[in-house]
Amino acid sequence: MAEDFPVVGQDSDAWEAARTLAEHRLPGLVVTGGDGKPWSILPASQVVRFLVPRYVQEDPSLAGVLSESMADRMADKLRGRTVRDLVPEEPPELAVVADDDTIVEVAAIMARLKCPLAAVMAGSTLVGVITASRLLEVALTAR
Amino acid sequence: MAEDFPVVGQDSDAWEAARTLAEHRLPGLVVTGGDGKPWSILPASQVVRFLVPRYVQEDPSLAGVLSESMADRMADKLRGRTVRDLVPEEPPELAVVADDDTIVEVAAIMARLKCPLAAVMAGSTLVGVITASRLLEVALTAR
Repeated sequence: MAEDFPVVGQDSDAWEAARTLAEHRLPGLVVTGGDGKPWSILPASQVVRFLVPRYVQEDPSLAGVLSESMADRMADKLRGRTVRDLVPEEPPELAVVADDDTIVEVAAIMARLKCPLAAVMAGSTLVGVITASRLLEVALTAR
Repeated sequence: MAEDFPVVGQDSDAWEAARTLAEHRLPGLVVTGGDGKPWSILPASQVVRFLVPRYVQEDPSLAGVLSESMADRMADKLRGRTVRDLVPEEPPELAVVADDDTIVEVAAIMARLKCPLAAVMAGSTLVGVITASRLLEVALTAR
């Protein structure tokens, strides 16, 4: 049931992580810690949030007065940053499942954590990821 | 910047909506109301949540004792239901933007609502959708 899925480390380049999300049109990435084990999730929406200037977050009406050239440089904020800088201070809990868990077990964990993807472990090794849409595909074709 | 994107009505068939999410591997769908205007968002993770039996939601350890054949019938819960049945009682607020908004305006609205997609309107007509990953793509290639 697991899918191949790009994984990034906490210390990976933030620009590269954003490019991976964009190129593969992913809802999020699994972020691994220094030990190679899944640590958190980096949702694409969180990266979008990071790109929005602080003063626009505080007063959204200011977004309309930014010049096009400033808008074009929005992604520059990613330069020199790491994935760790993008993840919120309280990192969202990643759903972690075992490769022999049933579809109901995976669904239950995703549902409880409201997480759009689950990391699949074989013992202590990350072997893949299951997105919510992939789980639906399996559920709908189960019989 | 907008993408073609499947849209479902509140009264659309729940099974068909789940199949659309699965087939196109989408993080969510825009749900329109009776007037054809965007009403809410149906995240794939919400459909997964709907499929999990109530007693498993309350006690996740019960997921492991379900037989495979019960697991295979998990999606049957969608039969005869509409999209309205899947959306939470307090429907999440959908980000709605105008087709001439700048990328910073779109990002600001997505960030504020923590919404993984935005509906794009030309006047009162829904003309497309922007996902968070699509917005990143535009931001990273802006120059």
